[in-house]
Amino acid sequence: MPERKPRPRDSAATKALLLDAATAEFAEHGPAGARIDRIAERAGANKRLIYVYFGDKNQLFDAVVEEEARAVFEAAPMADGDLNAFAAARYDYMLANTPSRRLSTWRTLERIEPSGAEVDRFRARVDAVAAAQRDGRVRGDLPAADLFAIVLRMTESWLSAPPALIAAAGPDPRLGEHRTALLEAVRGVVEPR
Amino acid sequence: MPERKPRPRDSAATKALLLDAATAEFAEHGPAGARIDRIAERAGANKRLIYVYFGDKNQLFDAVVEEEARAVFEAAPMADGDLNAFAAARYDYMLANTPSRRLSTWRTLERIEPSGAEVDRFRARVDAVAAAQRDGRVRGDLPAADLFAIVLRMTESWLSAPPALIAAAGPDPRLGEHRTALLEAVRGVVEPR
Repeated sequence: MPERKPRPRDSAATKALLLDAATAEFAEHGPAGARIDRIAERAGANKRLIYVYFGDKNQLFDAVVEEEARAVFEAAPMADGDLNAFAAARYDYMLANTPSRRLSTWRTLERIEPSGAEVDRFRARVDAVAAAQRDGRVRGDLPAADLFAIVLRMTESWLSAPPALIAAAGPDPRLGEHRTALLEAVRGVVEPR
Repeated sequence: MPERKPRPRDSAATKALLLDAATAEFAEHGPAGARIDRIAERAGANKRLIYVYFGDKNQLFDAVVEEEARAVFEAAPMADGDLNAFAAARYDYMLANTPSRRLSTWRTLERIEPSGAEVDRFRARVDAVAAAQRDGRVRGDLPAADLFAIVLRMTESWLSAPPALIAAAGPDPRLGEHRTALLEAVRGVVEPR
């Protein structure tokens, strides 16, 4: 049966629309709960194009996760192993990108194997921390991978705090104060001693 | 139709078996993916008893989450606002209890409202940190709720590290070293300055 809907002329644009729609859908419902129909509807595209461009639902989830991982990596650079600047940039990105936080959480639960590209990106981060340790800019008595893992999770500590803790702390989000507290705490972790 | 299976004499024991089975099932599959049939099978009990003791699947999940939250709270006490001792105990508990980590993660994604009892427990934690700040045992220039949220997430930083980071750091888990690094980092965050 011939397609009735007008087909967008630019397939790259359609692909980007589908990826955005898939990002929102997977972030909200997770890989098990996400529905291809809803993704096509959100994107205003024919769902057969999802299979053409990305493959099955698992492959689409992998594409979404890889794209998000790359975006976070670029948004929070780490020149010269500066963990303070990294923490500030990552907090700002995560604060502005709830879907990104939820996607990485779904992914942990699904125990999805990392791609080689992602392992390389993390290795570059750990190497940058190790170099800063050798130069005396970051405390040198803890393993570089641990320091990086600790600072990484610290950047999400308020954003992923248990709802009961947020309720106990009062209704005001005070996001500027959280940022200041985070950066002060990171300084306490990384400063040479 | 009469039941063929022998019924356990002790209903408290059956309830405990069902709660254990539900904890394992929800930790593995999450609230959406968990199946009442599998929980009954794991517990070796009739699935109608789940409805009798706990109610529907959502109520069973709430019971599992409340029980786990209480267990973590008791396993990681915080006498005198000692965040270092709290961090060590919480790391040890979380290391030994993968289901507990996964349950609290599923819960975050499902955006489940905390119970009043849980909010009270967190408020007691924050109050203990604030008291330690007033006594000069913990740095006093950052909000108590932030300090607590930061240390809380630090305790899981290696246990919830991205798989790509763990792969980049090499295959050896070195759990003793992670514990030492965590406690040193926590000291850097909380020590008075």
